Order: sequence, then C-alpha cells, then structure tokens
Amino acid sequence: MASSTENFKPKIVNGPAGYVLQDVPHLSDYIPDLPTYCNPLQDNPAYSVVKQYFVHVDDTVPQKIVVHKNSPRGIHFRRAGPRQKVYFESDEVHACIVTCGGLCPGLNTVIREIVCGLYHMYGVKKVLGIDGGYRGFYAKNTIPLTPKVVNDIHKRGGTVLGTSRGGHDTAKIVDSIQDRGINQVYIIGGDGTLKGASVIYEEVRKRGLKVAVVGIPKTIDNDIPVIDRSFGFDTAVEEAQRAINAAHVEAESIENGIGVVKLMGRYSGFIAMYATLASRDVECCLIPESPFYLEGEGGLFEYIEKRVKEDGHMVIVIAEGAGQDLVSESTSSMSQQDASGNKALQDVGLWISQKIKDHFSKQKKMVINLKYIDPTYMIRAIRSNASDNVYCTLLAQSAVHGAMAGYTGYTSGLVNGRQTYIPFYRINEKQNKVVITDRMWARLLSSTNQPSFLSLKDVIEDKKEEVPQTQLLEDDISCDENLEVNKEISYSM
Amino acid sequence: MASSTENFKPKIVNGPAGYVLQDVPHLSDYIPDLPTYCNPLQDNPAYSVVKQYFVHVDDTVPQKIVVHKNSPRGIHFRRAGPRQKVYFESDEVHACIVTCGGLCPGLNTVIREIVCGLYHMYGVKKVLGIDGGYRGFYAKNTIPLTPKVVNDIHKRGGTVLGTSRGGHDTAKIVDSIQDRGINQVYIIGGDGTLKGASVIYEEVRKRGLKVAVVGIPKTIDNDIPVIDRSFGFDTAVEEAQRAINAAHVEAESIENGIGVVKLMGRYSGFIAMYATLASRDVECCLIPESPFYLEGEGGLFEYIEKRVKEDGHMVIVIAEGAGQDLVSESTSSMSQQDASGNKALQDVGLWISQKIKDHFSKQKKMVINLKYIDPTYMIRAIRSNASDNVYCTLLAQSAVHGAMAGYTGYTSGLVNGRQTYIPFYRINEKQNKVVITDRMWARLLSSTNQPSFLSLKDVIEDKKEEVPQTQLLEDDISCDENLEVNKEISYSM
Amino acid sequence: MASSTENFKPKIVNGPAGYVLQDVPHLSDYIPDLPTYCNPLQDNPAYSVVKQYFVHVDDTVPQKIVVHKNSPRGIHFRRAGPRQKVYFESDEVHACIVTCGGLCPGLNTVIREIVCGLYHMYGVKKVLGIDGGYRGFYAKNTIPLTPKVVNDIHKRGGTVLGTSRGGHDTAKIVDSIQDRGINQVYIIGGDGTLKGASVIYEEVRKRGLKVAVVGIPKTIDNDIPVIDRSFGFDTAVEEAQRAINAAHVEAESIENGIGVVKLMGRYSGFIAMYATLASRDVECCLIPESPFYLEGEGGLFEYIEKRVKEDGHMVIVIAEGAGQDLVSESTSSMSQQDASGNKALQDVGLWISQKIKDHFSKQKKMVINLKYIDPTYMIRAIRSNASDNVYCTLLAQSAVHGAMAGYTGYTSGLVNGRQTYIPFYRINEKQNKVVITDRMWARLLSSTNQPSFLSLKDVIEDKKEEVPQTQLLEDDISCDENLEVNKEISYSM
Amino acid sequence: MASSTENFKPKIVNGPAGYVLQDVPHLSDYIPDLPTYCNPLQDNPAYSVVKQYFVHVDDTVPQKIVVHKNSPRGIHFRRAGPRQKVYFESDEVHACIVTCGGLCPGLNTVIREIVCGLYHMYGVKKVLGIDGGYRGFYAKNTIPLTPKVVNDIHKRGGTVLGTSRGGHDTAKIVDSIQDRGINQVYIIGGDGTLKGASVIYEEVRKRGLKVAVVGIPKTIDNDIPVIDRSFGFDTAVEEAQRAINAAHVEAESIENGIGVVKLMGRYSGFIAMYATLASRDVECCLIPESPFYLEGEGGLFEYIEKRVKEDGHMVIVIAEGAGQDLVSESTSSMSQQDASGNKALQDVGLWISQKIKDHFSKQKKMVINLKYIDPTYMIRAIRSNASDNVYCTLLAQSAVHGAMAGYTGYTSGLVNGRQTYIPFYRINEKQNKVVITDRMWARLLSSTNQPSFLSLKDVIEDKKEEVPQTQLLEDDISCDENLEVNKEISYSM
Repeated sequence: MASSTENFKPKIVNGPAGYVLQDVPHLSDYIPDLPTYCNPLQDNPAYSVVKQYFVHVDDTVPQKIVVHKNSPRGIHFRRAGPRQKVYFESDEVHACIVTCGGLCPGLNTVIREIVCGLYHMYGVKKVLGIDGGYRGFYAKNTIPLTPKVVNDIHKRGGTVLGTSRGGHDTAKIVDSIQDRGINQVYIIGGDGTLKGASVIYEEVRKRGLKVAVVGIPKTIDNDIPVIDRSFGFDTAVEEAQRAINAAHVEAESIENGIGVVKLMGRYSGFIAMYATLASRDVECCLIPESPFYLEGEGGLFEYIEKRVKEDGHMVIVIAEGAGQDLVSESTSSMSQQDASGNKALQDVGLWISQKIKDHFSKQKKMVINLKYIDPTYMIRAIRSNASDNVYCTLLAQSAVHGAMAGYTGYTSGLVNGRQTYIPFYRINEKQNKVVITDRMWARLLSSTNQPSFLSLKDVIEDKKEEVPQTQLLEDDISCDENLEVNKEISYSM
Repeated sequence: MASSTENFKPKIVNGPAGYVLQDVPHLSDYIPDLPTYCNPLQDNPAYSVVKQYFVHVDDTVPQKIVVHKNSPRGIHFRRAGPRQKVYFESDEVHACIVTCGGLCPGLNTVIREIVCGLYHMYGVKKVLGIDGGYRGFYAKNTIPLTPKVVNDIHKRGGTVLGTSRGGHDTAKIVDSIQDRGINQVYIIGGDGTLKGASVIYEEVRKRGLKVAVVGIPKTIDNDIPVIDRSFGFDTAVEEAQRAINAAHVEAESIENGIGVVKLMGRYSGFIAMYATLASRDVECCLIPESPFYLEGEGGLFEYIEKRVKEDGHMVIVIAEGAGQDLVSESTSSMSQQDASGNKALQDVGLWISQKIKDHFSKQKKMVINLKYIDPTYMIRAIRSNASDNVYCTLLAQSAVHGAMAGYTGYTSGLVNGRQTYIPFYRINEKQNKVVITDRMWARLLSSTNQPSFLSLKDVIEDKKEEVPQTQLLEDDISCDENLEVNKEISYSM
Repeated sequence: MASSTENFKPKIVNGPAGYVLQDVPHLSDYIPDLPTYCNPLQDNPAYSVVKQYFVHVDDTVPQKIVVHKNSPRGIHFRRAGPRQKVYFESDEVHACIVTCGGLCPGLNTVIREIVCGLYHMYGVKKVLGIDGGYRGFYAKNTIPLTPKVVNDIHKRGGTVLGTSRGGHDTAKIVDSIQDRGINQVYIIGGDGTLKGASVIYEEVRKRGLKVAVVGIPKTIDNDIPVIDRSFGFDTAVEEAQRAINAAHVEAESIENGIGVVKLMGRYSGFIAMYATLASRDVECCLIPESPFYLEGEGGLFEYIEKRVKEDGHMVIVIAEGAGQDLVSESTSSMSQQDASGNKALQDVGLWISQKIKDHFSKQKKMVINLKYIDPTYMIRAIRSNASDNVYCTLLAQSAVHGAMAGYTGYTSGLVNGRQTYIPFYRINEKQNKVVITDRMWARLLSSTNQPSFLSLKDVIEDKKEEVPQTQLLEDDISCDENLEVNKEISYSM
Repeated sequence: MASSTENFKPKIVNGPAGYVLQDVPHLSDYIPDLPTYCNPLQDNPAYSVVKQYFVHVDDTVPQKIVVHKNSPRGIHFRRAGPRQKVYFESDEVHACIVTCGGLCPGLNTVIREIVCGLYHMYGVKKVLGIDGGYRGFYAKNTIPLTPKVVNDIHKRGGTVLGTSRGGHDTAKIVDSIQDRGINQVYIIGGDGTLKGASVIYEEVRKRGLKVAVVGIPKTIDNDIPVIDRSFGFDTAVEEAQRAINAAHVEAESIENGIGVVKLMGRYSGFIAMYATLASRDVECCLIPESPFYLEGEGGLFEYIEKRVKEDGHMVIVIAEGAGQDLVSESTSSMSQQDASGNKALQDVGLWISQKIKDHFSKQKKMVINLKYIDPTYMIRAIRSNASDNVYCTLLAQSAVHGAMAGYTGYTSGLVNGRQTYIPFYRINEKQNKVVITDRMWARLLSSTNQPSFLSLKDVIEDKKEEVPQTQLLEDDISCDENLEVNKEISYSM
C-alpha cells in the first residue's frame, strides 16, 4: 500500500492570533465547474423549523481547548454538518459502505444510520453494502441496503456486511467503484483501513472521478488520534466490568487469590485504564505505554507479593499489547525448542499468568491461586449501548452531510465534543496513546496504588520524545497541557 | 431562601480578542493573610512522576467552542485540578458531604471519591457524612466516612447518606458548620440544592469563616446549564432503553398497539430525546420544551391515527414535564368535581394514556390497545455505569482539588470535555433546555417522523426570546451556534 | 362459549393399588380404521442411535409424589414423547399455530420449536401462523412459517404471530380449519384460551374431522393447575428482581421510605411469592389468596408503622389481584362521586399507595415517602431466559409428538418434572393457587416477618373448603401433602 | 481419606409392591436415650397458621417416576422438612458452616439461609463460619455468622467464607469439632468434599459424638447423582448464553468464521448440553460422555468443513472434559519435546482450537477464522439468579430441619421436585452423566445436526455397561426409562 500522500499538499488556512485551519479536500479542488444544488433538507418538515440548520461556512472547532489569556488559537478543524449547497442530486448518488478489520460495538448502527441518513435526509435510494471488507469490492457480491433492511440491525453485535482484514488492492477497488458507478464510498475501519482509504482517495483524485471517499474511524482500542473517543469504546469499558468483577470475586474467595484480566489494547491502554478507573476493584493495570519489569525491587513480582500478603488477594488488568518486549524475549528463547508452544505464549495474558505462577511456585514462599480471564470476544461482539448508539448516529450523519456537500478525503470525528471533518493525514499520522506522564494515568496509579515502574530517567526521556510532536505550542507547559488534552478527552471529560 | 447574590459581585477577568473569564471566589477574597502550604501531592509516588501535574494558574476553558476565524474568544472558566499551593493543612481539614433531592445513579461514587480523594491525595482523615439531606445538618446524626466505609458503595444505587428535599435553613446549617468545626462543605444536589449552597456560601462569607463551600451538580434530567452533561444521565438513557424495548414489543404484538413510556424530565427533555435517538423504536417523543396539541390538524391524535394505520403500532415517549399546560387545563376543570382523582392525573403519562384511550373509544373508528410504562424509579435507583463512574470520579477529585486550593462558591463541572470551576451564579441562573429550533431536535424529528407541532410563529417567537441570553455574541448566527453548542455537547458530542 | 364437555366422558383407566390414569382422547376414538405409519424419527440420524427412543405405550407419570409405604398410587398422566406409530404422513400434515391473550416470555420459542420440530423431526413442510389470536382464523391473513422464518425469533420478546383477547367463535374457527384443510391445530394461551380450545376440539369431534387439537398452556401467573410451572414464569420472577431492587434502594435512601411494587397475578400470587423469596429485600407480600385488612390491630397500616419505625424503610410487593374486595369497596363508594377517577383506582398498586399515603398524612404521626413501581409490561415483554427456552422446546416437541401420534384434546405439560399429556378438562377445571395454609407460604411469612392477616377461623374454613377437591386421598394428612405438592412444585422444587 | 463406609450398613426399609426406602442415619442410631423436644416452630407466628406444617414421619419420595400400571414402586428417599420433635434445644446448638472446592453461584445464598434458618426458625444464635475450606477447621480463624452479617451476601458471587481444595484431615477436623463444642456441621461442596463429609460422619459416629454432619451438594457441572439438579446450574446455563452469543456474532461477521466456546464440565456435559439447547445458535456440542474423533469420515473436521461451506460459519461448544483421550494423546507425544507447552495444551478449548487451525492451514482448501472464548470464571463468579436463590433457600432450610430432627450423614437434595434427605453413599457412589443414548441428547443432536460420532458398536456397549447399575428394575425398557429419568430431570423437566 505505497502511499503518495505527499503529492497532495494539506489544505491549510491561517488566521489571526495563531489560528490554523487544517482543512479537508473538496471535489471541486480537482474537478472544475461542478454544479451545485439546494440542500433538499430545506424542504424536510423535520428540519425546516430549525433556525440556521445549515452549518456556517466558516465554522471551525479548535483542537486545543485548555487555553491561557494570551495563548495562540492553534489548530482548528472544519465543523461537520449539512451545507446550504450540495454537490450531488439525490437521484445521482450511488453510495457504498464497507466495514473492515475486527469487530467493534456500533458497526451496525453506523451502517444503519448512513443508509437511513442518505435515504431520509437526502432522498438517496441507491446504497450498496460491500460484503466482507475491502476484498468484497472485487471478490464478492454486494448487498442492496434500504432503511427496511437495516431497520433492526443496531440491536445486534458484529457487522451485517461482514468484515475481513487486509485485502486492499487499490487499483481493483477503484476499478470496481468506477465500474459500478459508485460516487460515495463510506469506509468504516481502523488505522490500516483508513490508510487504505487515503490511498483510494488519491487514486480517485488521480483519475479525476467525482467520487467522495469518506472514512469513519473504528477502533475499540480508542487509539485513533485527534478524535475524542472512538465509537464502541464506551460499550467496551462497560462490558469489561463483568470480567473484572468476576476476577475480583474469584480472587477474594480463595487464599492468595490473583485474578488476571486481559483487555483489548494493542498499542494503547485506554480500555484497560478506563475499565480500571471505573471498577475500583483493580490493584494493578499494565498497558503498552507503561513499560514494566517482573523481577527485583520495584518489579511486578515484588508488588504482587506485597499486595497479596496485605489484602489476601489482588486483581491485575493487562492490555493485550502490554509488556511485548518481555513477551518476545521469553518467547524467542523458548521458540528454539518448540515452535508450536510459541503460539499460545503470544497471548500476553497467558504469558504473564504463567510467569506469575512459575515465580511463586519456584520461590515457594507463598502458594498463589491464579485465575485468568480473557473476555475479548465477549466484549467486541456485543451490541452498542445507548451512548454509543447516539454517537454512531451523529458520526454517520456527519459523514453523509460532508459527502453530499462535496467534501472528500476526510473522516468524520468528534473533537472537543463537536462533529468535525478531519483530513486523512491527521488520522493516519500516529496513534493515540495513554500519556503516562500525565494526570489521568496519575489518577490510575493513585487508584490502584501500583508502582509506576518508572525511573526519573524514563520520565525525562519521555518528555523529550513528546516535544517534537507539539512544536506548534509555545512552551513546555502548554505542551503538557496539550498532551493532557488528548488523553483526558478520550472519554469525554 | 432569600438570595443576596448581588452583594457579591461576580469576578470577571477580561483579556484580548474578546476573552472573558468568569472566575470563582476564593477564601482569600475575604480573609486576608491566609497561609499557604505545598501541595502534598508532590510527594505522592503516583503523582510525582507526572510532568507538570499541577494545573497552570492561567489555564482556562472556553464555553464557546464552535468559532470563526475572526470571532471573539468569549466566556471562559477556570480549569479544575490540583494547585501547587494549598490553603489547608491535611490535619486541619474537617470536611462534610451532604446529598439532597431525588436519587440519581452515581451519588455513591461521588461520595466515595470525595472521601478517597481527600484521604489518599491529601491525607485528610476527618470526613463526615450528613444524614438525610440539608436537615441532617441540624436534625440528625452524622456518619464518619473513611475509605473502608465507602469502599464498595459505588456498586449500589441510591445514596448511603440518605437524602431529602427541602429542609434548608441557612442560619441553622451555618451554625452547625461552625459548631462542628467543619471547613470544607461538599453539597451534592440539583438546582434547588445549589441555590441553597450559594446562600450558605454567602452566609459563610458574611461570617468571615474559612470554610470552602463546594457544589457538585446532580440532576438526572441534565437540566443544569453550562456543563456538558450531569452525572447519571448516561446511565439513565441506557436504562431507559429497557422500557422503550418493552413498549415496542407490547405494541408490535397486538393490533393497533400503542406503547407509552414516561421518562424523567420536569423542565427539560434530554433523557426523552437521547433515549429516543438511541432506541430508534420510537415514533413520537414529547418534551416540555416542545408544546403540542391533541386535537385537530397537525395534532397528536391525528398523527397517532396515521401511524397506527400505516404501521399497525407505535411507541410514544413522553417526558414527565411535557404538555403541562394541557394537563393542568384538564385537571383544573376536573378538580371541581373530584379532588382525589386529581392526584393520579398529575402524572402526565397516565393523563395522556387516558386521553388517547378516550379519544379513540369516543371516535369509534379504531380500537386501540394502549400499554403505559413508567420506569422512573427503576432508572433512578440503579448503580452508575462505567462511564458515569469515571465521570463521578473526576468531578469529585476536581471538587476536592478546588477546595484544598482555597476556592469556594463554585461547582466542579465538565465544560467542553474539561473539568472546570464554575461560579454558583452561572449554574443557578437558568435551566438547561433542549433547543427545539436546533439541530439535535431536528435529528429527533427526522428519526421519529413526528410532526413538529410548531407553526412559523412559534419559531420566530422562540428566536426573539432566546436573544437576550446571548447578548455577548455578535450576531444571530453565532447566537444559534451557541445554543447548538449547549445542546449538542450535553451528551458529549 | 357453551361447553358440552359432559358429552365426552373422560377416559379413565384404573389399575392395582389405587392406580388411576386420566387419559387423553385419540383420533381413533371417533374415527375408525385410521391407518398408521412408522415414525420417521427412526430413520433420523440424531435419534437412531438412541436406545428405546420411543415412549413405551404404558408409560405414565403420577400426579402425587410424596407417598407413604402403603398409600394408594393415585392419579397418573400419559407420558409425552414420540410413539413408534404415527397417524399422519409427513406430506399430509397441515398444521397451524395461534397465540392468544397477554404476552409471556417464551411465546416465540414455543412457536419456533413447533415449526422446527414438525419440520426437522417429522418432515412437515406446511405450517401456518394464525395472525392476531383466535379472530385471526376468520378475520386475518395467515403467515407461512418455516425454520428459516422462525430462526431468530426466540431472541425477541412478544409473539411474532400477534395476539388478542377474546375473538373466539367456534363455528367460524372450525369452518376455517376445514376450509384450509388444516389437520393439526396448536393453540398457545391461558385458561380462557384453553377453554376455547376444548370447545374447538369438541366441535371437531362432532364433525368427525381428522384434526388434532393441541393446547400449550401459557400463563405468566403460573395459575394453571396440574402442571409444575408455566413457561415464562421463571423469566418473570428473575426480571421482577429489578423492580424490587429499585424499590429497596429508593426506600432505603430516604427517611421513612416505602417502596411498593405491583407484580402480575390476577388470581394467584406465585410471581409475588417467588420474587419475594428470591429477593430477601421485601418486608411484606400481598397476594390474592391471602386476604388482608388495612386498619386496626394486626392490619397492614399497623405493620407498616412498626417496620418503618424499626428499620426506617420497607418494601411491599403486591400481586395485581390482591385485596380486590377492599379495592372494589373503596371504588364503588367513590364512583358515586366520580366515574373517571374509578379507572385509575382499579390498579391495586395505585390504590394501595394512595391508601397508605392518605393514612399516614391523616394520622400525622409519621411523614412517609412512598414510591410506587409497576414493572408489569417490562417483565412480560422480555425474551425468555435460558431455562424457559429449554422448557419451551420440550413443551413444543411434546405437543408435536402427541399430535403426530394421533392424540387430541390435550395440552402438553410438565408433571413432577416429566413431560405429559393432560386432558383439557383437568387444565380447565380450576386455577392453581398459592395455598396459604401450606409450607411455602409459611416460608414467605418467615422471610418477611409480616403478619398472616389470618385468624384461626380462616384457617379452619380454608381447610374445609379444600377437602372436597382431594377426595381421592384417604385422610387429612395426605390431603395436606397433596396441596403442598401442588404448591411446592410450581417452581420445580 | 480411607473410607470405611462398609462398617455402617445402609438403612434400608422394604414395603409392599417393590417399595424400597434408602433411609438416612440418625443420631439415635448410635446414641441411646437421646431426649427430644417440641419443635419451636410450632410457636412461630409464621408457621402456626399452617395446617400440618410438620412432615409426616412416613413421607417418602420415589426416585423412579415414569411408571407402568404394574411396575414395582422402587427406591424412595425420606422427605425433607420440619419434624414435630427435635433432638436439639435452641441454646444447645453450636453450628458451623464450611465451603469447599470451586466457586458456584448460590454459595452465599446457602450460607445466608442456613444462618437465617437456624436463627429465625429455631432460635439458634451460635453459628461459626469456617474460613477457607476444610483446612480452616484447624489452620484458620473462624467467622461468627449472624443474620445481620449475612444479610446482603446473596447479592454477591463467590463465598464469603472463602474456599480451598483438599485440606481434608479427618482426625484434625473432628478434633476441632470436639474442641469447639460444635454439634451441627454443614458442609457445602462437590463430590470430593462430600466423600470427606462421609468420613467425618463416620469418625464422629465412632467417637459417639452428638454431632449432626450434613452435606449440601455443590457442583456447577450438575454431576451429582440422584438429585434433580445442583444449585448454580441454572445460573450457569443462563450466563453461558453470553459467550455463545458472542461466538455466534464473531463467526457470522467473518468469512468461514468458527466460534469455539469452552464451558464447564469435567466429567459430565450438562452445562454444554443445556446451554446449547437454550441458545439454538450452536452447530456442534462436544461433551465428555460422547467420544468423538477428528480425522476421517464422520469426524469433526469433515463436519466443520461441511457446515462452514454451507452456512459460512459455525459455533462449537466444548465441555472442559470432552475429548480428554485425544488431548492426552497429543500432549504426551508433545511433552517429550516440550514440558512447558504442555500446560497450555491441557486446556481442551485451546487444544481443539489449535487442532482445527492446524488442520485447515495444512489442508489449504479453506481459510478459516477461529475465535476461542473461555467464559468459565465469568460464569462461576456471578451471583445466583432468582431461581437458584429460591432453590438454595429450600436446600438450606431442609438441611437445617434435618439436623434439628437428629438426622445425620445425609445431604439435602431435590428428587423429582421434592426436598429429600439422601444418604451419603448414594451421592458418592458415582457421577451423574449425560446419557448419550437417551432422548435429551437426541434432542441436542437434532438441534445441532452434528454427527453422533457413534457406531452401532458403541451403542450396544453402552447399553451393557449401564445394566448393572439398574438391577433393581425388571427389564431393559424400564432401565432405559430410569436413565432417562436421571437425565431429563436434571433441569427439572
């Protein structure tokens, strides 16, 4: 998936007092003389009573929100919502929807609301579902989607369109889009998928097609940057409580009981962190962002021994991507002897459970009883809760409004509580991570009383590392604030 | 509860480009030469690794967030969080907590986190629970609160402190505060309660006491202004889905079935609106902000007849404060004959159910089957969900940081996804309401397809009415945006 | 619905040691020379490995199960299950299913399993759903039912066939059965519905039709005699816990809090009794079988005052049919003044809540805070739980096996944990009730500590009344045991 | 734990028509001239209104319930319940409760109801909780239990007493019983635990102590013989639905998706079987009782390929003890190379998932996507549902009534829906298993359409094997019935 994003320069608008707008592409950027039409919403009885229903052309939303009296205004995004003028006639639109990657609560709600939004708000009748992810564009049948077909799908987990990983072949996909006469492409997926979407957009642009390419970021891990939180995250944190409760009950009911719960989070530990904060029954939370070590002073084993001795039990939550350096260390030495055992050990939850058991059985000071719970699929596969349902509705409607208005190469996304359009490059540039030198993580440490596993050296290094990404900000203090911003808002607070 | 707020002028700070800070009072405003101390958090292992843990003294958060390139910066609030200097020594603090008004999911979490926050972050050992609301200050025993006592209370609904309505007697309460040597008062309650808190603060100030008076806004209805959403709201919207599902199943299973669900919302219809949007099984949502009428063209009966004829069934969600003008009309004429029947009819759900039944039985064109569900107490009394648990934790910790830093006369509250300190007068000035000429309500109308019950005249009048409250903004467009802001963010999106 | 059951004498078989079999009718009773066929199950791979899969022709199940060494063997029912010989060829069968009366969890599972049972076990392809209850036979369209159509319906509450009350017109229904060539009729409904089924069976028999008429008893109240428990009851008791929990939290959180929960149970209080026993948070349970009084010594008001004074709160569970004598008393005197208030007061929950409020406000000794919860529709409309799903499967399969084997005029039903065929007259003869002079009710009284509201006179009268129904038993002691049997088994223990 | 059960001959009473009573021991069997007292229940207001509250001395319950007109009456058990005469005075009783083995929903309810039953029904004030299983008798502190202490424990999962495996040292335990003056011992645990209880009873008897030793059978697997079902089983089957639903959604959402769910069941597959029957989303259920093979015709791989090709996905439920012969085969060959990989592979769920993945990746015809879910601890650790709460209450009360009446060496247990007292030797003699040549399993095969994995040879062998256990019955047919009885009633139907 060779990216050539650089060919297309980001659209940047500068304003007074340090105002910067990172704008999204528009079909008219590369297709001249596109006709426009009145937005059919203005004749819709539901909307016609609304004053100023249409979003003002100049509306933008700042990324940075904790400010000082004299601080520069910083980066802004274009506000999402319906525009007075649209670039498609209702009859002309032929939309398609594809879902890629792992399951996430809310996928079906997003599908439903794109279909219903196009149909009820814009009178669009032709919407296709692409079956089974990207490869469905060229290898599978499609599914015609109508409001009736999608009416109850939000009550089910999973995705009615099916999904798959990979399968991205830009040329074939854009060929298929052209062949079928599709002119609005809605792509729901995680960072890999959205990188693919970006390349599709570029190819579409190269070919000069009047096709809006729209992403809706999907990641249960909440690891997509810029946006407040990803859909399904709230549902996941809620559902994770069941597993933590079970681990707590198991640990409490037996002498020296230890409950280990693995939660989702390959590169970022948001689910683990919020599930821990919400539960209050967790004594240790391990995430990818926070390196830890097992042996010796200040290590995990020492902490476990201390807590179990004091309280008689403990609960450990571990994100799936935590401690990968340690896992691969053990695994590679082991893999020399046994290739097949390897696979089981790649699961960090099984790995750490085994390590803890081995340590205490070797050490012989304390007989522990460890119970390991992996609720991953039981969390991913449930339907979205009410909060995520509303959120998915707004994301889907924003996506539709943008495509109708001729925008392309963007994702819809919530920034500081407002629906915005974000250019692909901002979503794809890096991953959203828990900033472990920031306050939310401090709250967690304070709640669990676990050691930070950090030396002063780590802190300083971390600081250095973060600086380049925030060069827009005038000083270290604001920089930290900005980091804090990213983190704190991830769950809308 | 005679208010004399005017005696104490709001603290306003102006800055460049239209920047306005509506600041909160501080103990040092009226007590000179207060000593300060280093914040004990800086020796806390959990926090000491965090860079810039303390909030910068100049950090503020804007209320208005949808902006234009050249728009003024508008009203800001002081950012919540720990300060480098505190105005209380740990040993000196004697805090109390009181809960007032109706139940709301999350009360116990807020209590728990104030106690644990004071204890673990600031080493405060003396925390009293006031039993049974305001009157508990002078008429009841108190409950000593420790982390151990409150350890599991967040897993239960209700409030372990007990609650009551009314009972506010400023003099007696402040006498009790003085007598007991309390110097931090945490008051959790709705608008009536916070008006009381404001008067307590004024009396404390008059008497020149070193007592921080802190509010934590509680309203399941989400009708408190300025803040994004109130705690418990998310849980309530989720739990309301059960009732709507049941109404939908009942209505669908019988010929001409009508399900009526009454939800909370005396003065504002947020729960009804969001529960409707989340469910997608509702054909009509009636809220206090949107007047409606029963008879005649464009009226409710006509719409019911149409929907039931077309679909065979329908679900109506009604907020408890909806249509109060109609209810009191019917009731007053009826009350001349019968005083006791009166009481039952004050319930708008029973009232509208009876009205619908009467209409269709009189009219004889269609035999309807109506089922009425009132899930109010089943919603209020449950424990808070994960999202509200995290939210309550941050609200409580913010409240504690503020009091320790010497601020008083404020509530902690989420503004655009950031914890802030808001002066009492902003919380008490008016109620947060669904703006029915705005986009979220349009989304709802579009989702249910119900009539707006609005004439053009209503729209224009509504517009006029709203203007005075937004005089800070330069024009009508921004004004609307600002309203939109209030509404859309109420559920953090 | 004039019954002429007497025309058809019950089939009774007597055996040694007091053995009595109350048998069910068979098509061959009135149609001579019916051909029989080999049961197609014997070629079914799933069943062919099973030893003795077919039920032995002599298998019966005793109604009386607590026995003495020398006691007579008593009434027995024919065991349900597949027979070696069937009276219908697969191609010949044309079945229909109808659901009548109020909703009950499990209706859709029963429908699903009749369809799948006929299809997968017997190769029957023609199954019709009758739309909207009895009147659907002659006034509505029918719904073709296949395994695919019903595949997921057990995951939803309600009934996909629709339901209604009344609408029974024997002649029209049997005409419709004849016209459509239907030869197996599955009727799912409560006592009224099964009385109708009995009359349909008689008319079918009079006309000499080869039509099996089968009932599946449905009553969320568990008020159907003979059988252990009705489907949906288990789910209802579980779901009722939510309402009781909410009432408990509300009552506990406020001074002198009283929570009142109304549960289903027009003529029998099983749901109220079991929900109370399961919860352990209820201080008073009022059911139709146990008369009570409000005023004076030993009355409800006195008990409430005592409990609220001692504990500060209490929870009352009331079955909808409890205290109807008291309600109609108040209502009739009131109705002279006001006809419309009447309606609201027929709800015993609203009525008793008002009575309690009035009493304590008049009395002025104690200010109480009463919260009333009516979860009826929220309980009825949910999907069945796992236990009820399995139960519904067996009931449906038993019904199908019986019809295929030529039996008619029966319901399938669980007796002492075994599937049996029960003649209509036993199901319709009287209602199953909580026996308040028996041990389960004593357990409840002991659990709530409520007064029995019974005088010695009541006990003696009750005893007399019960005797005639149990004349088969030799003495009083056994008689009581038999009553105990009816009651205790209602929830399978 | 050397058993000497044979020393104490079973108490058998024979009656007419093949009646056999397998009676339980009584303190007076080995202690002469024990005084008796009036049961204090007769002065209890809750019970005094109940006619014939006390169980008749001759009441028994048959084990065999499907009968023929002339069949012998078979084995009976003594009915549980309060007796007119008791062998302990209230002040004299010193009871203790111990919980052993793995967690099971309902443990806390049983504890609560023993305490409350002793206290409220018999006025017993001295009840001790033994901490942490059998070893708690001699190695740990005890916990005084009162109604207040246990009031809310039924709302939590786990056991408040703590539990452990093993730790049985008869001499030390009986010494501790004697030293503490305990005279009623309530032991809650599975088959190992109850074997221990049996030995304790024998030792107590040898020493001639007036100590009632009572068991309450606990096994989430439902593998205890004689009784209808074990407590917690119903809750477990319900909770297992979540995991199956998740597996179904995951499998459906991806091409060639396979969901594998491991459920509890070391030696018997009841949970897997009932969870499968309740769900209807499972295409294959593997249990310990039904041997299966992977490769070749009629094997699992062939079936998987077929189902995935036809439906695009499938769900497999596997009990933890299924296919242990196959697992140990693979494991032992593997363990020669790698000891540590061994451990992970002992989990049959991981093992079969790996086997399936390996097969299809080797075979290369079909790319499958397998998701494995192990919900074990999330099921075990939840609180009991309403149905199990009521059941636990009756079990606990029955246990208490029996001990007060002087019975010993028994467990309380539900037989054909009636509470009975069962001698230890019947509970310990063998395990309850799914009879795979019987009808419930046929139902399952029919529901999943999976192959039986059985050859005709298997069936015949199985038949032979079963015969000796049922020698009391006259012929093969009854024998099968008896087996059916065991199985079908396991879930009370």
